[in-house]
Amino acid sequence: MGDLLWPADERAGGVFTDTAFLDAMVTVEQAWLDALAESGVAPDPVALAGVVTAADLEQVAAGAEAGGNPVIGLVELLRERTGSRWVHRGLTSQDVLDTALVLCLRDAVAEVREGLRRQAHALAGLVREHRGTVMAGRTLTQYAVPITFGLKAATWLQGVTAAAERLDRGPAFPAQLGGAAGTLAAPAQLGGGAAVARALAVDTSERLGLAFAAPWHTERSVLTEHADALVGCADAWGRVAADVALLSRPEIAELREAAGGGSSTMPGKANPVLSVLLRRHALAAPGLAATLHTAAASYVDERPDGAWHAEWDSLRTLARRSVVAASQAADLLEGLVVDAEAMSARAVAADETLRAEQRSMGGPSTSSGGIHEAPYLGATDLIIDDALDRARILWKDL
Amino acid sequence: MGDLLWPADERAGGVFTDTAFLDAMVTVEQAWLDALAESGVAPDPVALAGVVTAADLEQVAAGAEAGGNPVIGLVELLRERTGSRWVHRGLTSQDVLDTALVLCLRDAVAEVREGLRRQAHALAGLVREHRGTVMAGRTLTQYAVPITFGLKAATWLQGVTAAAERLDRGPAFPAQLGGAAGTLAAPAQLGGGAAVARALAVDTSERLGLAFAAPWHTERSVLTEHADALVGCADAWGRVAADVALLSRPEIAELREAAGGGSSTMPGKANPVLSVLLRRHALAAPGLAATLHTAAASYVDERPDGAWHAEWDSLRTLARRSVVAASQAADLLEGLVVDAEAMSARAVAADETLRAEQRSMGGPSTSSGGIHEAPYLGATDLIIDDALDRARILWKDL
Amino acid sequence: MGDLLWPADERAGGVFTDTAFLDAMVTVEQAWLDALAESGVAPDPVALAGVVTAADLEQVAAGAEAGGNPVIGLVELLRERTGSRWVHRGLTSQDVLDTALVLCLRDAVAEVREGLRRQAHALAGLVREHRGTVMAGRTLTQYAVPITFGLKAATWLQGVTAAAERLDRGPAFPAQLGGAAGTLAAPAQLGGGAAVARALAVDTSERLGLAFAAPWHTERSVLTEHADALVGCADAWGRVAADVALLSRPEIAELREAAGGGSSTMPGKANPVLSVLLRRHALAAPGLAATLHTAAASYVDERPDGAWHAEWDSLRTLARRSVVAASQAADLLEGLVVDAEAMSARAVAADETLRAEQRSMGGPSTSSGGIHEAPYLGATDLIIDDALDRARILWKDL
Amino acid sequence: MGDLLWPADERAGGVFTDTAFLDAMVTVEQAWLDALAESGVAPDPVALAGVVTAADLEQVAAGAEAGGNPVIGLVELLRERTGSRWVHRGLTSQDVLDTALVLCLRDAVAEVREGLRRQAHALAGLVREHRGTVMAGRTLTQYAVPITFGLKAATWLQGVTAAAERLDRGPAFPAQLGGAAGTLAAPAQLGGGAAVARALAVDTSERLGLAFAAPWHTERSVLTEHADALVGCADAWGRVAADVALLSRPEIAELREAAGGGSSTMPGKANPVLSVLLRRHALAAPGLAATLHTAAASYVDERPDGAWHAEWDSLRTLARRSVVAASQAADLLEGLVVDAEAMSARAVAADETLRAEQRSMGGPSTSSGGIHEAPYLGATDLIIDDALDRARILWKDL
Repeated sequence: MGDLLWPADERAGGVFTDTAFLDAMVTVEQAWLDALAESGVAPDPVALAGVVTAADLEQVAAGAEAGGNPVIGLVELLRERTGSRWVHRGLTSQDVLDTALVLCLRDAVAEVREGLRRQAHALAGLVREHRGTVMAGRTLTQYAVPITFGLKAATWLQGVTAAAERLDRGPAFPAQLGGAAGTLAAPAQLGGGAAVARALAVDTSERLGLAFAAPWHTERSVLTEHADALVGCADAWGRVAADVALLSRPEIAELREAAGGGSSTMPGKANPVLSVLLRRHALAAPGLAATLHTAAASYVDERPDGAWHAEWDSLRTLARRSVVAASQAADLLEGLVVDAEAMSARAVAADETLRAEQRSMGGPSTSSGGIHEAPYLGATDLIIDDALDRARILWKDL
Repeated sequence: MGDLLWPADERAGGVFTDTAFLDAMVTVEQAWLDALAESGVAPDPVALAGVVTAADLEQVAAGAEAGGNPVIGLVELLRERTGSRWVHRGLTSQDVLDTALVLCLRDAVAEVREGLRRQAHALAGLVREHRGTVMAGRTLTQYAVPITFGLKAATWLQGVTAAAERLDRGPAFPAQLGGAAGTLAAPAQLGGGAAVARALAVDTSERLGLAFAAPWHTERSVLTEHADALVGCADAWGRVAADVALLSRPEIAELREAAGGGSSTMPGKANPVLSVLLRRHALAAPGLAATLHTAAASYVDERPDGAWHAEWDSLRTLARRSVVAASQAADLLEGLVVDAEAMSARAVAADETLRAEQRSMGGPSTSSGGIHEAPYLGATDLIIDDALDRARILWKDL
Repeated sequence: MGDLLWPADERAGGVFTDTAFLDAMVTVEQAWLDALAESGVAPDPVALAGVVTAADLEQVAAGAEAGGNPVIGLVELLRERTGSRWVHRGLTSQDVLDTALVLCLRDAVAEVREGLRRQAHALAGLVREHRGTVMAGRTLTQYAVPITFGLKAATWLQGVTAAAERLDRGPAFPAQLGGAAGTLAAPAQLGGGAAVARALAVDTSERLGLAFAAPWHTERSVLTEHADALVGCADAWGRVAADVALLSRPEIAELREAAGGGSSTMPGKANPVLSVLLRRHALAAPGLAATLHTAAASYVDERPDGAWHAEWDSLRTLARRSVVAASQAADLLEGLVVDAEAMSARAVAADETLRAEQRSMGGPSTSSGGIHEAPYLGATDLIIDDALDRARILWKDL
Repeated sequence: MGDLLWPADERAGGVFTDTAFLDAMVTVEQAWLDALAESGVAPDPVALAGVVTAADLEQVAAGAEAGGNPVIGLVELLRERTGSRWVHRGLTSQDVLDTALVLCLRDAVAEVREGLRRQAHALAGLVREHRGTVMAGRTLTQYAVPITFGLKAATWLQGVTAAAERLDRGPAFPAQLGGAAGTLAAPAQLGGGAAVARALAVDTSERLGLAFAAPWHTERSVLTEHADALVGCADAWGRVAADVALLSRPEIAELREAAGGGSSTMPGKANPVLSVLLRRHALAAPGLAATLHTAAASYVDERPDGAWHAEWDSLRTLARRSVVAASQAADLLEGLVVDAEAMSARAVAADETLRAEQRSMGGPSTSSGGIHEAPYLGATDLIIDDALDRARILWKDL
């Protein structure tokens, strides 16, 4: 793996690669064969594992244009090599392709969740350690009122928590089993009629560990909702990265990535490279989800003339990059170096400005000592507690 | 109301107009004043209703550039006209603006829900009436296998149901009350400290009928998630519209809008104008939500330098257009004219083609009579029942 | 004018408002009437100016849904009030609407050009004044090698120049005159046939000061190319704004806007509000142009079922916001306050870091004195000259 | 090559693959070495060809995260294997990466141009053959007035011509040679100063066959303008595809792709697969260009913290898919099967409707015979001539 133009792509490993997708399609065909046999419609299934492999990728890919998708060529190979005419019998290309998309997406989302879990733990640590680390709050680039770094980390944690909540309450991962026009007519025709056809769909879904759902061949909210949730993750990470990149600037120097990236020409340069690469993802993700929405809204007929095809690589790219970024964000937060002294020194230096609002409010403490003796922090502690409480609903051991 | 370049804009009435937004901001200021008084921090509140009105819009708008938002000018007017120095005391511009956004968004979403309810009822009627109305299924523009129009309507219903489910499980509508940097420092300073500050936030939220939440001044999933859900609605409507526009073509003529739009030059022309205007919305909506995501991912500091400002009109435009489209989609479906005979005649004419898969499957009924005697419809009835059952969870009386 | 949720909207004045668009449509109808009369096809034209005015906006807008566009209702009013049956005779709605879009777009682009001109002059001044003002170059947030502020301003100038060049070499502003399906059949029918019909189109274009072009009713590059060019402007301004917002931070404080924006609660706060509002535009503009492209690619038939309608408000919003931003960027640059001493002091303080590359290169001057005695500036002067030369091709008096 | 999830990817062959990009980076390093030697700054250059090859891709890609880009690892390999310390001396990563992007983009655009040329020739043939083939014009899905298929093809040709014109007037393909912060300080330091540094940049540009330009390291209109032009191509093809897909429907059957795509389950099905895959590209392309704009507008400093990195794969994907689509559109048009009889028969059948406007216009020929005796075609012939004339400026032999 690896991609010259998307550095760190290898962090996603085998998730949603062409090979993974090929395997997923074969897995779907196998589950269907097994269900057919279990129901008595077909004889004992042949084993498809290993029949078509990564070595066949180029051939299957090259054959995909003629039929408009890679399933037709795959099925030909599977039938030819197993001699079984039952392979794919009763399915349509979209059943196999959509279900394989969902299988790969599920794997990607699982990796993203693991990243979010790691991030939440790292953030909880930062929140606790820096609950009282006073720093300058900044709005519209200028000093505003004081905050603590624990509070900033708590708002990051809120973003990570919200992103994870959204993944949790998103739609399930359903198999797509509807046949040529979403009627399950072909499996019904194979014997047993409607009830058996539907039972085949249920059984196949279960074998794949997926939810059973009525055909969603033209109702694509399953994909758009997952995609939106992944962009929600990108937003949460992008915001952390924007803060880290800013606070890593030498003029500010309140945060630092554990291992800064180097330069091809300037020795000693330590760039906040994880933040940079997270921001990259955050900039590119919304366009991918927008494409999925445009496609979903363009569905027509019982299978559309282009909208379906526009989804596949957009979804894959978004999912894979999300896995990369989830891992990077976790590394970033686990290794984040906080210079509490620098934060404190700046807050002291800017005390006059950071007190402006307080003075205008009047009240008891304005005339008192410096920022650390009488910090103007309002309900910071309560808000931090709220953020931790919310996160603990998802991650009990936080 | 009305917008020359977004025909039917007036369907959204006063929702999320500049006037509505002004009123919402005043409502927020009032709720805060009331909460301050209730808590004993401030004296009895002045009444703000009617103090600043639509007549002041131009002045408030014109003053918005200097401070970067319309709150500062509004507060000046309110203070000047009421003579109360307690107006806005303890709040920051973002508190007022964000909470007003949420109030207006809530109103828009309520209208969208009502549209979805109407659509679901109209669709359930179509599903029941046309459960057995055989028509040609089409994939990739070509005839595939038979379906019934009831099934097609049931897949539309699935889209509408999924869109409504998503609105239901979306985030609540929270007030934004955090002060200049999300610490509630100013209200705490006014007297009583952190606990009172937080109680003020809770009380204000309740007075507005909004959820209480920790400050989300830099964590914008509240907005993106609602926006994504609204685009999900647009997708569902866009897909219905694409099918209706297609099936209204004179060469197909299986569906017809109740009242077709006219022409400036061709008498008698009946265009599927609601479908056309729904497709318009579906094409334009994804870009607006993408902007909200790009903004959310660009948040930095305790208030960002542009990302916040990019959200306001994008959200408003999306919300308002969603209200328009919700109403149009309901009208479209309530008035949809189905030509069951045309559907049937075409299915008979294409019987040979629509049977191709069935023949290739073998099995009992292939040699039998025409499409109506032995329809090749698989589990169509069961799938229709599934769609109705799912919708009935949301709309009991469906 | 004014828009609560897009502060500074009033800078665009009357450009591309609903009123301006109404007037533009009337202007198109008048030009056509005049051309008809000139050619002898119709009798002396009635005068349409003032017949339908802003007072009719609500009625025309409200009538736009029925026919899917505002032209039909406008024509009814014009015919009714003038009694002339020649109004709109031979035209189709799209002719009027598209040509009015182009008229309004042309006005917006003219304002944008004027803004670019002002910006270029302001930038040339900054370049000249600060050609030798050494400052720290920064890459990936960290110190890199020295630059001068004149060079930074020169790269901004390159962006402004490139944006202006692109507007210059963009497509012309053509009238749309093709009739119901782009054949000019109706005007040909009115008398005189094809040659006269075409002459009418040429004459009408000339009367409007627009280019004559073959009907582009389904070929929308005219709109997308202008829209892309406007987004190109937004990019150029966004980049200036990003640099100004950054360098205005109190920890850096090398630049400052002439008049910073205030706060509703923090006295004395000076936010870089023009930069903030420019960044807002830059974040929101790409989605609008993307919508125009998606629409353009979805055109079907001789007038499409939604794609056309999606363009109108997207184009208007982009154009109007571009006018606002052009004016803001000019103000920003004309008033920009440069703290050359702060730049210099920082470069001296960071001298060790800024010399790292130089040391690694070896060569004569590495052992010499501080950053100002032996600046490591390479071809900075030549590059500045290049940028000025390029800009002078467009603006001779620069 | 080949991509399971973007069928027909292999049509782009080796254009802008990871291997091509690796080669392009090596080519840039070589050109610089050669220029260094030519200028006398460095000794005779080592030969880099073949030193790092596709076999090293995984290693270079895996090393790209640490420095944030693939250049650093590549340079290490090149230096290690050649033993030359002059490799990359005076360059920065961005010089190599940006220039390699431009080299790959240039190759992609060359392929796109060849596709446009083929398309124009095919279209000119269709225009000539069907100049008089009457068919129903359709607007908003309904019959409007008659056109000829030659006219429809001529409007397609206008789109292809406009797309090609835009590529032609786009910016040149410039090398990026500016060093760490766009000052050419490093090469100046190597000996000879500013003039030699600049001469090195000019010489290197020439060796690569690229334009020389002042550093555009933070001024990205070079990339966005090319990207927009490629989306312009996608729009032109998408529109052709939308018409072909529609007119290939069995109920209309006026057009047909030469070789329709098959089905995994329905024998005999002939889907307009090239149209489908072209529409796919048109749906996905705008989001990619929007990402490039968002990135361009987010540039800050002398190299930004994420915006640069977001460009690479977005540009590559857009460019590669454009090559695929250019080839598909050419095949589609070269093989398009026109059923002139079906067109004619439908026009006759719909004669009453297609005459409605003509009747309302009055004039001489309305009472005459059928659509073929007295066609209501206005200036169709003249408009066709205009389209051909415009195309011939680009393709003389059309």
